[in-house]
Amino acid sequence: MATAGVVIIGDEILSGKFADQNGAFLIAELRALGVELRRLDVIPDDRAEISATVKAHAARFDHVFTSGGVGPTHDDVTIEAIAAAFDVPVIRHPELERRVRAYWGAKLEPANLRLAEVPRGAELWWGKDTTWPVVSFANVVILPGVPELFRRKFVEIRERFRGEPVYVARLYVDADEGRLAPELDRVVAAFPAVKVGSYPRVAEREFRVLLTLECQALAAVQEAYDALASALGELVVRREPPQT
Amino acid sequence: MATAGVVIIGDEILSGKFADQNGAFLIAELRALGVELRRLDVIPDDRAEISATVKAHAARFDHVFTSGGVGPTHDDVTIEAIAAAFDVPVIRHPELERRVRAYWGAKLEPANLRLAEVPRGAELWWGKDTTWPVVSFANVVILPGVPELFRRKFVEIRERFRGEPVYVARLYVDADEGRLAPELDRVVAAFPAVKVGSYPRVAEREFRVLLTLECQALAAVQEAYDALASALGELVVRREPPQT
Repeated sequence: MATAGVVIIGDEILSGKFADQNGAFLIAELRALGVELRRLDVIPDDRAEISATVKAHAARFDHVFTSGGVGPTHDDVTIEAIAAAFDVPVIRHPELERRVRAYWGAKLEPANLRLAEVPRGAELWWGKDTTWPVVSFANVVILPGVPELFRRKFVEIRERFRGEPVYVARLYVDADEGRLAPELDRVVAAFPAVKVGSYPRVAEREFRVLLTLECQALAAVQEAYDALASALGELVVRREPPQT
Repeated sequence: MATAGVVIIGDEILSGKFADQNGAFLIAELRALGVELRRLDVIPDDRAEISATVKAHAARFDHVFTSGGVGPTHDDVTIEAIAAAFDVPVIRHPELERRVRAYWGAKLEPANLRLAEVPRGAELWWGKDTTWPVVSFANVVILPGVPELFRRKFVEIRERFRGEPVYVARLYVDADEGRLAPELDRVVAAFPAVKVGSYPRVAEREFRVLLTLECQALAAVQEAYDALASALGELVVRREPPQT
């Protein structure tokens, strides 16, 4: 299963001026694509922080998606930070420069040309939007922070990342987690490929703990689900067999 | 201004089984308290990952808040990961053990005693809930992942962190960011204590960019706001003077 890291760049998220939308969107998208999200970091508009974070993600995960910090103003430092992370210079991409000049025409301000800047070696990925491509560099996909644009651009390129779906089964249990722990340990040991989660819910009346089992191999989830349901017997008040 | 890092621990967030609530809650709380959130990382239930992340946050920020991974089951590894980060053993806290035994009584399962485990040297912070304290270790506050419990516990201890409020002023501008960049650069240079943000909004009809100015010093925000509003003149279509 391919792995991914997400880096949400923006003082505005950390300071609560805007609620994050892009992280939440990407979590759902990556799940549907069968990509395992391993880490999501929300960091400030700070060159050193962006550079170190992207570098760490790029070394550890198959794909890295960044949100934000691309634009013409002083707080848009993502491009130079990613270039620094990979020790390449920032260049003005001829194809992007041509498009920026065509788009703004006589109204072009010098700052707009910052939108043509990329780390040297960046690729342009074209989707249905034939005016503006998505910029990627190495295994890093560089997306804008404005939620509408972020979503539109991700949807255009998402098929590049599609893998096998994950199957999840759920057991809703009316018992204390302490009671469940030994049974869970047994299932975890017997089915190492299956990820087992245990989530107490205090606001529910019907059950006290939601147990989840998940894996890309349907047979493995089914076996673990059957074993755990059978071990817990009447403690299970509701069940959902494996589904994608 | 005190700084903080937040570490949200949970496969269930990264895999999209539950939407994060605790991070969003804490962003709003920290802002209201006048604490500067510098980083928020969402990471899996993995000892090494938790340990490395908490250690890095604890070294860089005044306060660290963790969410999740405390409980009696196999996926609850936060306590041992934090102990490892600070190179201390996990011990069973006598006061917590007494309370766990009293709470579960004859129904006590061995796994429940994991709730009495803390990194050696941990402090117990008591709030209005006189049954269960909040556990902290060094500058790390260890909170549960269940959203209702997370909120209840944070509210009990939040006054420990209260600082000076931040003032924010806003200018809603009908112009392209490229046009604004030179004026923003001037304000950023003239008022180094004021944080200036520029946020294009594509779904708005009245304005194209929201500019924000913020600082704990009211006079500085007011001056920067006046200077920028005056420089932008008629491009400003709406304005909100400094407020907390």
